Amino acid sequence: MSSSFGERIKITVFGQSHSAAIGAVIDGLPAGETLDMQAIADFMARRAPGRNPGDTARREPDSPRILSGLVNNTTCGAPLCAIIENTDTRSKDYDALRNIPRPGHADFPIYVKHNGHADTRGGGHTSGRLTAPLCFAGAVCAQILARYGIKINATITKIGDIEAAKAAGDSVGGIIECTATGLPVGLGEPMFGGIENRLAAALFGIPAVRGVEFGAGFAAAAMQGSQNNDDYFVQDGEIRTRTNHHGGVLGGLTTGMPLVVRVAIKPTPSISLPQESVNLATGESTELRISGRHDACIVPRAVPVVEAVVACVLLDFMEGAG
Amino acid sequence: MSSSFGERIKITVFGQSHSAAIGAVIDGLPAGETLDMQAIADFMARRAPGRNPGDTARREPDSPRILSGLVNNTTCGAPLCAIIENTDTRSKDYDALRNIPRPGHADFPIYVKHNGHADTRGGGHTSGRLTAPLCFAGAVCAQILARYGIKINATITKIGDIEAAKAAGDSVGGIIECTATGLPVGLGEPMFGGIENRLAAALFGIPAVRGVEFGAGFAAAAMQGSQNNDDYFVQDGEIRTRTNHHGGVLGGLTTGMPLVVRVAIKPTPSISLPQESVNLATGESTELRISGRHDACIVPRAVPVVEAVVACVLLDFMEGAG
Amino acid sequence: MSSSFGERIKITVFGQSHSAAIGAVIDGLPAGETLDMQAIADFMARRAPGRNPGDTARREPDSPRILSGLVNNTTCGAPLCAIIENTDTRSKDYDALRNIPRPGHADFPIYVKHNGHADTRGGGHTSGRLTAPLCFAGAVCAQILARYGIKINATITKIGDIEAAKAAGDSVGGIIECTATGLPVGLGEPMFGGIENRLAAALFGIPAVRGVEFGAGFAAAAMQGSQNNDDYFVQDGEIRTRTNHHGGVLGGLTTGMPLVVRVAIKPTPSISLPQESVNLATGESTELRISGRHDACIVPRAVPVVEAVVACVLLDFMEGAG
Amino acid sequence: MSSSFGERIKITVFGQSHSAAIGAVIDGLPAGETLDMQAIADFMARRAPGRNPGDTARREPDSPRILSGLVNNTTCGAPLCAIIENTDTRSKDYDALRNIPRPGHADFPIYVKHNGHADTRGGGHTSGRLTAPLCFAGAVCAQILARYGIKINATITKIGDIEAAKAAGDSVGGIIECTATGLPVGLGEPMFGGIENRLAAALFGIPAVRGVEFGAGFAAAAMQGSQNNDDYFVQDGEIRTRTNHHGGVLGGLTTGMPLVVRVAIKPTPSISLPQESVNLATGESTELRISGRHDACIVPRAVPVVEAVVACVLLDFMEGAG
Repeated sequence: MSSSFGERIKITVFGQSHSAAIGAVIDGLPAGETLDMQAIADFMARRAPGRNPGDTARREPDSPRILSGLVNNTTCGAPLCAIIENTDTRSKDYDALRNIPRPGHADFPIYVKHNGHADTRGGGHTSGRLTAPLCFAGAVCAQILARYGIKINATITKIGDIEAAKAAGDSVGGIIECTATGLPVGLGEPMFGGIENRLAAALFGIPAVRGVEFGAGFAAAAMQGSQNNDDYFVQDGEIRTRTNHHGGVLGGLTTGMPLVVRVAIKPTPSISLPQESVNLATGESTELRISGRHDACIVPRAVPVVEAVVACVLLDFMEGAG
Repeated sequence: MSSSFGERIKITVFGQSHSAAIGAVIDGLPAGETLDMQAIADFMARRAPGRNPGDTARREPDSPRILSGLVNNTTCGAPLCAIIENTDTRSKDYDALRNIPRPGHADFPIYVKHNGHADTRGGGHTSGRLTAPLCFAGAVCAQILARYGIKINATITKIGDIEAAKAAGDSVGGIIECTATGLPVGLGEPMFGGIENRLAAALFGIPAVRGVEFGAGFAAAAMQGSQNNDDYFVQDGEIRTRTNHHGGVLGGLTTGMPLVVRVAIKPTPSISLPQESVNLATGESTELRISGRHDACIVPRAVPVVEAVVACVLLDFMEGAG
Repeated sequence: MSSSFGERIKITVFGQSHSAAIGAVIDGLPAGETLDMQAIADFMARRAPGRNPGDTARREPDSPRILSGLVNNTTCGAPLCAIIENTDTRSKDYDALRNIPRPGHADFPIYVKHNGHADTRGGGHTSGRLTAPLCFAGAVCAQILARYGIKINATITKIGDIEAAKAAGDSVGGIIECTATGLPVGLGEPMFGGIENRLAAALFGIPAVRGVEFGAGFAAAAMQGSQNNDDYFVQDGEIRTRTNHHGGVLGGLTTGMPLVVRVAIKPTPSISLPQESVNLATGESTELRISGRHDACIVPRAVPVVEAVVACVLLDFMEGAG
Repeated sequence: MSSSFGERIKITVFGQSHSAAIGAVIDGLPAGETLDMQAIADFMARRAPGRNPGDTARREPDSPRILSGLVNNTTCGAPLCAIIENTDTRSKDYDALRNIPRPGHADFPIYVKHNGHADTRGGGHTSGRLTAPLCFAGAVCAQILARYGIKINATITKIGDIEAAKAAGDSVGGIIECTATGLPVGLGEPMFGGIENRLAAALFGIPAVRGVEFGAGFAAAAMQGSQNNDDYFVQDGEIRTRTNHHGGVLGGLTTGMPLVVRVAIKPTPSISLPQESVNLATGESTELRISGRHDACIVPRAVPVVEAVVACVLLDFMEGAG
């Protein structure tokens, strides 16, 4: 389904940018895990706006309220539901946009899919705001993974010139690389249910992701087999590879080397510069000027989101490993 | 599960490189579709080896035998199962490799996952040979899509120097771009079950795929919003975009513009050059020389496989469109 | 997963009897459906305690708060999340029971599954209280089904003597029959994904259901084919059957006759009479006396729950009918 | 999907009564399990016709051919596909029935669902013949379960007078009870993905099953809580219940007591006696006389089928138990 992912650890995300609240349900967590709520708050703070130049002016504490699944901060085996109330919503900013799809956003196909009934305020269900509950879920999963010795870390490997873009009413994108260490060998499945398949499927659920690659990724297309192949050797009794062009995953399965996945983030589609669009109600062309609050670059805020999604998927594999 | 994909159109692939047969079950096909069996054979022939320099020397007719699902070549609503007998297998080529994982292949993690019980002959279940039944399934789906006015076409946009690699006992990779035209607007789902999510998940099921991107893809990371956004305008009563950096899909949903997806294919991991590996039974380092038949470049043969997977996924969305 | 069901209309239920709140997420609802919130409240009131002799003394308004998915009471295509705050909880009633499994409840296997970490207060996640959000979901689905001309109605066909049981500190069960009219012919799937399969799977999710049968059900086992078969004839241009022993469903598919499904509800396991149990912490036998509030018979309150589950499953099939 | 079930152990069944072959794919089996092929043949022979009075005159050896998934009769982690060729098919027996739905069969709704394109010969995909590959799958799963100490046994607890029915051109049904012993405590899931939910869903995939109940089942509806509840006590260090009205399963989870599930089998709908039907092509009423080979009672042959389905579902839970 569109708003859920995972098999053993199933995450369901709900809410719209301007609905009463947004939230997530995490089903399948092992019971007996005591959560560090401050660490979760810290993780979520990395996604919240206001920390980087170019962030949206929207300000919200993003403090999750736990509705279920915990007893004394310890998982009890029941689905964990957390919600975040929406408070700083300026729906009228979006009234003018109701029938005018913003280039680069999903407004147009969503309008068609839902016959004009979609909640367009602030991007509705497809808003980047929905990554807040995703980060909550990821923070929970990352804590449990850490107890298995698995650590996840994402960094920006490429980014545009944010301050210049902001001044020009424009936006920029970038590339985020995420690494996971401590994974066992042989985790995953071959063919269609493996590490690459399910990580990619989940990562494309993050707004603005346009590409996903593992290890050398697209660069491998220009390499020779003798360059790209990673030779095996034994180190301290463990089988390792001398290089890691395969990014820790081969044919759906982990190799024990660090998992390396990279995502391409497109420039934020909401820009102040005038754009050409069409009024879907009248069919007439119109110039669009977006005046709402938005980020000149979401790449820094997307870093914890990428970690969160990777954590959710990897914990799912770990819990299913049997 | 590892060997199936799809929701309304569910494809299950089975077989190993050297098992008695390989095959596919396609469940959920609409009833009453008369299939052009010659067109299916022609499609599968594009994948069969021997058409391009650098292909493996293994020769097999790959003619599918239909076990179920068709009456007078017409779908009857029951699962369509087709099998291909394996005839030209030289299992003893692989005896020496049983415990020595080939770099770049999934041998090592599969060995660990299955405690040494995996069928390693010819790559077993993860062999590229399994793409033959996948092509069968794709050829069937593509025929039905064509009746909806949807056409799928893949081409090579980047490829290494095959003849030089072959001469050197090495291999090369490349990039395949696949386009689908005629799709309706609004097909797909937001968030985790959309076009990008499910296409990527399935495409990573093709052996050697290391990256998947849509539209401008990774290049979008270096663009500005004003460059990457595609302005809307009206042409012949249809809403279109002036450019197609978004590759026909936004936020999980089709926009009516041509769908553009690109996959990175790594160089074939089987090369004749000596490589360093480890004997998993003894834990000792060893030099590996692969003498079996293999492709110096699988990119040309992968072109119909990419089309096949895209066809399967898109028909799945179309049948679920309601 | 354990807390979700459905394919096109996916219902996820969360909460424990004594958590901050309980709720449901309904994903996949068609956009543009204006909901009658009073009708939903009325439907939920049928499940609320206090209307029948023998109901629990726990009193809660059960008024759902909509967090997402509606704009002006109209579905917008995003997941609909509704929560119900838990207010009248007396957790200390259950302190003594923490390690002493109640006969007829899932306490013992849940204790083992979750290593003693399950939330046992009030039955936790397996409490009948979770049927409140289920009724919310069912009320929503039933409204949409009604617009398709499909009506669902459940009645009690067998019930024990409630007042006598209550006086004796005992409990009774019963049988609920649910009928759905207005269904099209040919809805469903053969074999494992059909009407019977998925209705049964969902209905066994209602606490205390111990059997599910369609049409003549278990009585068919004692009939002859000539008695049980339903002859076809034409009436007003429609093909109908003279009798309805098949209960409107054959081989996973609807026949256009009224769908008839029956569930057996066991007597409420919580009784005041002394029972024999074991202290799981000490392994010692103990006499158990349950003093919390409980129903002497939940059959009357289960009637709308059965309707709700049937509505959810049937709408799922309708939305997938294409 | 309609022709598959299971999560970790996924069974896909294909074929029609008169297609070239029928078969099953079993995905997810643990690697390294050596199968006793003779025991599988013996299990399948229990389902084959000709052993009981009242069986169909159709004679087929039902010997499965393994296409994949085994190396030296040992599972290798790849999907196990087995097929059974169809040989003794008399399709012309069914020509006259093409447009005339047989009462009690799914012919009518299938005709509508597939717009007249379904394969009607011998019942097509919904034929009881498809239970042969299901028995193959069940025999495989049962062997692996036996190694975990889990034994499955089904018996007939009620059956009509077969010889009298046969003489009268009529048919009879019955009830089959299946018991599984050796299950661990706490296997399963609460709510919608538990033992009852998934066993019921799969069992309703067996043709002619009209009801499924656990433990006391429908009889529990007439009991008092004090009668139906099963008191706990300690025996040989194990927690057990004094009675087993709950049939070894509470709230989706096993209790360690023998699992007891019962299915109602309706009388075979194919009878020689004249029946009233409608020609779907002309809309005219017609008298139907079924002359093909059929069983006067399928209950004896259904016994191993019930065991097979229970084995498949329980192994699925065991493999997912982690």
